[in-house]
Amino acid sequence: MIGVDWGSSGFRAYRLAADGAIRDRRSVACGIADLQPGDHAALLQHDIGDWLQQDRDGPVLLCGMIGSRQGWVEAPYLPCPVAPADLARHMTSVTLADRPALIVPGLSCERPDGSADVMRGEETQIFGLAATLAGTAMLCMPGTHSKHVWLRDGRIERFATAMTGEVFALLSRHGLLAAMLRPAPAGTDMDAAAFVAGVARSGRPGGLLQHLFGIRADRLFDRLAAPAAADLLSGLLIGHELRGTDWGAAGSRGPVTIVAAPDLARRYHMAYEALGIAAQSGPEDAAARGLYRLGRLIREDLA
Amino acid sequence: MIGVDWGSSGFRAYRLAADGAIRDRRSVACGIADLQPGDHAALLQHDIGDWLQQDRDGPVLLCGMIGSRQGWVEAPYLPCPVAPADLARHMTSVTLADRPALIVPGLSCERPDGSADVMRGEETQIFGLAATLAGTAMLCMPGTHSKHVWLRDGRIERFATAMTGEVFALLSRHGLLAAMLRPAPAGTDMDAAAFVAGVARSGRPGGLLQHLFGIRADRLFDRLAAPAAADLLSGLLIGHELRGTDWGAAGSRGPVTIVAAPDLARRYHMAYEALGIAAQSGPEDAAARGLYRLGRLIREDLA
Repeated sequence: MIGVDWGSSGFRAYRLAADGAIRDRRSVACGIADLQPGDHAALLQHDIGDWLQQDRDGPVLLCGMIGSRQGWVEAPYLPCPVAPADLARHMTSVTLADRPALIVPGLSCERPDGSADVMRGEETQIFGLAATLAGTAMLCMPGTHSKHVWLRDGRIERFATAMTGEVFALLSRHGLLAAMLRPAPAGTDMDAAAFVAGVARSGRPGGLLQHLFGIRADRLFDRLAAPAAADLLSGLLIGHELRGTDWGAAGSRGPVTIVAAPDLARRYHMAYEALGIAAQSGPEDAAARGLYRLGRLIREDLA
Repeated sequence: MIGVDWGSSGFRAYRLAADGAIRDRRSVACGIADLQPGDHAALLQHDIGDWLQQDRDGPVLLCGMIGSRQGWVEAPYLPCPVAPADLARHMTSVTLADRPALIVPGLSCERPDGSADVMRGEETQIFGLAATLAGTAMLCMPGTHSKHVWLRDGRIERFATAMTGEVFALLSRHGLLAAMLRPAPAGTDMDAAAFVAGVARSGRPGGLLQHLFGIRADRLFDRLAAPAAADLLSGLLIGHELRGTDWGAAGSRGPVTIVAAPDLARRYHMAYEALGIAAQSGPEDAAARGLYRLGRLIREDLA
């Protein structure tokens, strides 16, 4: 079978053996924005046309922002709780090289603050990971929009998204603090002490809006160097994200599983440690496994 | 005497009678940025040269960002607690039309989160207001960088700054939420229900970073119209600002005094009401009175 994880900045395509092993993979830096109807199929034909030709029987599955309103076709959100079989039964079909290709739906849920929440793409990764986790667990998937996910008995029970990465990027590029931060040059190690100080500060009196201004004042009095300020801000935001997460049943679900690239995963490990919450690392590239698992469920349903 | 409140976007100059009455006032939209040494004196000569000519005996006082590192000359920060007489004794002198002009120092303080805090310009407004308040009070001065101020026995005991207005501007102009918000057209009334819903949401489970993403999800499901989303965001941020403020001794200091232009003051009144905290409006243009008060203290010191 063929699986494609197509997000806002590009796609990763996998050619999978019958046992789920990755036989081949390709990455293309072409996000979903600025594509016209018809472009999606043409792009896949161009980049994985040989796979489609050679592997005519297996299912083709796509997940990620490709199923959003701005994507190929909208694959409606499924409300939580959701099991892998629910996803397999609610695929949205498109035509690719004269055969159907299936788009995985996103998930929605209700949050305790009264608002809705959504994910698209992570659900496939989560079910890819879940094969290697206990059925009841907590996941942390940090990034531009960090996801905290509560798994129970192999189903996604609920989740909460925090705009941590995006707010960090906004504050680093625009406004008062931007001129006062200087991320360390590539290859330089992060300032771990400043990061941990930021996590600690997130728990002190005052809210995030107050804590942000403290960075400005500390810079003004040279209490904080510019690269340290960037790591302190990072710790402050991640600290607020984790403190804003409902840990109600966390302990009973075992350590939180962090799914992120190594640099970001390291920050979250440090933050969880500072908060006294047990955490472990999950495998990074779980989308291929999730697509394989969903593909197998679809075959079983058809069989 | 002559008083000038010179902030980042322009200055307001006041010609004051011996009893403090404002005899004349002028506004010039010329902020402190992009000025070279020498420009400040030349600008004042150009815009209030006639006052300087006619009123050669009284003191000339300047407050605001003009005393910052990016201003005319840096007037060092005085650490809290600070009384009006402390300000009067720590002016920084510059030469204007062959006479001394005095720049009011800014204030600094230590915050319970371990960071520093600063203000510049507000201290003069506060002592202008303090003449009309009990000596022990709490003030709220909302804006790009909102100030909460604890007055005790006529002195500024401490204060805390929140980046509320700036974060609202960043989120409205850049990033994911910007495209989903549409502030109501000028002249249209705010959506008070959406604003109050935002204040309420700020107290629910999840932190600010989680609550922000809820606006995105609610827009996606059309639970929220674009102009309502802007007011909900405003309520959410102001709610987090006020909940992040330490109200320890607030009740014993009487109602919080809000100092802001009418539109913003209305939002804060609604937010305080939603939180069950008594609030009242203070006079808006208190800088002239503060400059007058400081000028009189300087005269008494010299006498």
